[in-house]
Amino acid sequence: MIDVEELRDCYTNTPSKMVLLVADGLGGLAHPDTGKSELETAHTPNLDALAQESACGLTTPVLPGVAPGSGPGHLALFGYDPLKHQIGRGALEALGIEVELAPGDVAARGNFCTVDENGLLVDRRAGRIPSAESAPICERLDRIEIPGVQVDVFAVQDYRFVLRLRGEGLSEAVTETDPQVTGAKALPVTAIRPEAQKTADLVNQFVEKAAQLMSEEERANMLLLRGFAQMPSLPPMGDVYRMDPAAIAAYPMYRGLATVAGMKVIRTGRTFADEVETLKENWDNHDFFFIHYKPADAAGEDGNFDAKVKCLEDLDPFIPAIRELGPDVLMVAGDHATPAIMAAHSWHPVPFMLNSKLTKGQGVPTFDEKACALGALGSIPATSVMVMGMSHAGKLNKFGP
Amino acid sequence: MIDVEELRDCYTNTPSKMVLLVADGLGGLAHPDTGKSELETAHTPNLDALAQESACGLTTPVLPGVAPGSGPGHLALFGYDPLKHQIGRGALEALGIEVELAPGDVAARGNFCTVDENGLLVDRRAGRIPSAESAPICERLDRIEIPGVQVDVFAVQDYRFVLRLRGEGLSEAVTETDPQVTGAKALPVTAIRPEAQKTADLVNQFVEKAAQLMSEEERANMLLLRGFAQMPSLPPMGDVYRMDPAAIAAYPMYRGLATVAGMKVIRTGRTFADEVETLKENWDNHDFFFIHYKPADAAGEDGNFDAKVKCLEDLDPFIPAIRELGPDVLMVAGDHATPAIMAAHSWHPVPFMLNSKLTKGQGVPTFDEKACALGALGSIPATSVMVMGMSHAGKLNKFGP
Repeated sequence: MIDVEELRDCYTNTPSKMVLLVADGLGGLAHPDTGKSELETAHTPNLDALAQESACGLTTPVLPGVAPGSGPGHLALFGYDPLKHQIGRGALEALGIEVELAPGDVAARGNFCTVDENGLLVDRRAGRIPSAESAPICERLDRIEIPGVQVDVFAVQDYRFVLRLRGEGLSEAVTETDPQVTGAKALPVTAIRPEAQKTADLVNQFVEKAAQLMSEEERANMLLLRGFAQMPSLPPMGDVYRMDPAAIAAYPMYRGLATVAGMKVIRTGRTFADEVETLKENWDNHDFFFIHYKPADAAGEDGNFDAKVKCLEDLDPFIPAIRELGPDVLMVAGDHATPAIMAAHSWHPVPFMLNSKLTKGQGVPTFDEKACALGALGSIPATSVMVMGMSHAGKLNKFGP
Repeated sequence: MIDVEELRDCYTNTPSKMVLLVADGLGGLAHPDTGKSELETAHTPNLDALAQESACGLTTPVLPGVAPGSGPGHLALFGYDPLKHQIGRGALEALGIEVELAPGDVAARGNFCTVDENGLLVDRRAGRIPSAESAPICERLDRIEIPGVQVDVFAVQDYRFVLRLRGEGLSEAVTETDPQVTGAKALPVTAIRPEAQKTADLVNQFVEKAAQLMSEEERANMLLLRGFAQMPSLPPMGDVYRMDPAAIAAYPMYRGLATVAGMKVIRTGRTFADEVETLKENWDNHDFFFIHYKPADAAGEDGNFDAKVKCLEDLDPFIPAIRELGPDVLMVAGDHATPAIMAAHSWHPVPFMLNSKLTKGQGVPTFDEKACALGALGSIPATSVMVMGMSHAGKLNKFGP
């Protein structure tokens, strides 16, 4: 699997324009009644027409058999080896609500929970307390002051929040407080490496103050902290690929991932129609666009086969509008499969197509798992997607003399 | 190519059960008269029926173009990068006759040979002296005593034996005594690294005593030693995969390889029918079973196409009995191809199928090289087999948040 910097010297700047459309959770599995996957079931004439003029294949997100989270799934499509560049849970949670994580900041994912009079865990998620009740608690926790560090608490949703520590000499190398079982006490944080002792002490002070402050709350009288993480430092896509990349995504998580990869995030609306409009408006300002389509993944995660089919059909009519812009390279990819029959991310190879003036005659009849398996590209690691795009766009010089 | 520990944190223990059936030397090549491979020629209705409900593909044992020995072929299927975890010739020879190699022990593969009155090699294999004649020589050599080390000699077959050294501070980093040509003298052993000087001295003492002791033997009056090796220390499969793995194999070599990988070896009989019976009897005691079918490889190595076809047909009727046990994941794999027309192990990708409740609709019509090449899994490294099995068994969590 290639990593983003390996061909660094071969990339060249040209005026050609690339679009990477990521349909989240694109791939699927056959419905037991019909033997057809979501893509095979969906009526998608525009995607199929594009597939007939594209080089098609399947992408393996991380490694065969490995189902990725959203972080590794996207980083791989951007060209980063997802085993090498890992984003911790706390950092990803911060990305998901667009909380800025500066270099050195440490973020943790927090859960509100309930404990009994002896401090033993009763409910690790505080009965999934709604946002309306958890937000005020976050505001009170946000006012906690610990000498030597800036502490901020951000509500996420329901029982979830983000804790961010900002200060000198912090480290992500600390253990979690969540014992993962009820009937046990929350654990104190300990340093995994010596340089993390200061962070461990600060977190334990925060938890102590938070526990006092929450002790009278009815619905959520304690908190648990997991996934302490700093933001990884990635070589920016613009530098490596000698491009000016931009991201258009309605969901904050994906804007965050684009930021980590060094893309400029363009403000857009809440729907994919808004995203395509944003793409049109900014067409002259960038030479690479990552545009994200979320609904298919959400439907797959819900285990709703028909809804996922509908989401794919809803994406289809936007394809002509993107093609009309005349991208030199248009790629349609997925960060991973989300088969509705699994109601989860999966490891299955994901349909992929790349359209350029160099892909005529390489097409397959339809855009789905089975047809793409027989496509000209065969099966490639997702980290090769950017390399393929760059070469088809004339932005990747010959390797070696 | 993934190595066994890379996803260590993602494995999880579940009650689901996996079976990895390894048909040794499974893959083949077309017979020149018919254009059909051994698998294509064989009548294997049960394997074909399984393929129709399985995700199928081809596995590359080590790297494209590389024919593996039994050691790397199996280690890769167990998830170990065979380039990283190598078993030396002496250690593999010891495994093949179930000679225990404790940590620190050094083993070498020995050949009996003949030398003339000047000590020059006449026959490097002593006319392939039969076991009946070589075994008594082994017994005499086994009684040699060298101060500071325990020396044991084990007969293998014909002119081959294993020398085992057991003691403090031994090293495998010594040269071989076999000059590889006749007309030359056996070489003294020298240390490749300084810490191996003691071992080199001990081996040279042993060779000197052995030469004296054998000088009057008619058929084999000298010995050659090759492939000094210690047993590699592998992360045990049970620890990495959080399973309780067991091995069922009629041949000692494969029991030895399973032991190196940390599996519990279950006693069984001499036939595959015995092995399947053992599998049934122990079904409740483990969650992972490696079961080994040897005959196809032996027939391939003999260059006997029809015999290999027959061996594959003989395997076929056992498939229903294994399926009746209800494994959550059943995988049929080969450690390498042994095309009868080559009469040797080969580098060709090997048919593979994985059956689970998630593989419906992914099947191919028949279980052979051509059909599997068009299967849903495509072409994967053999080291991905365990990852695929684990994910389909629900034992591999999502990678990354």
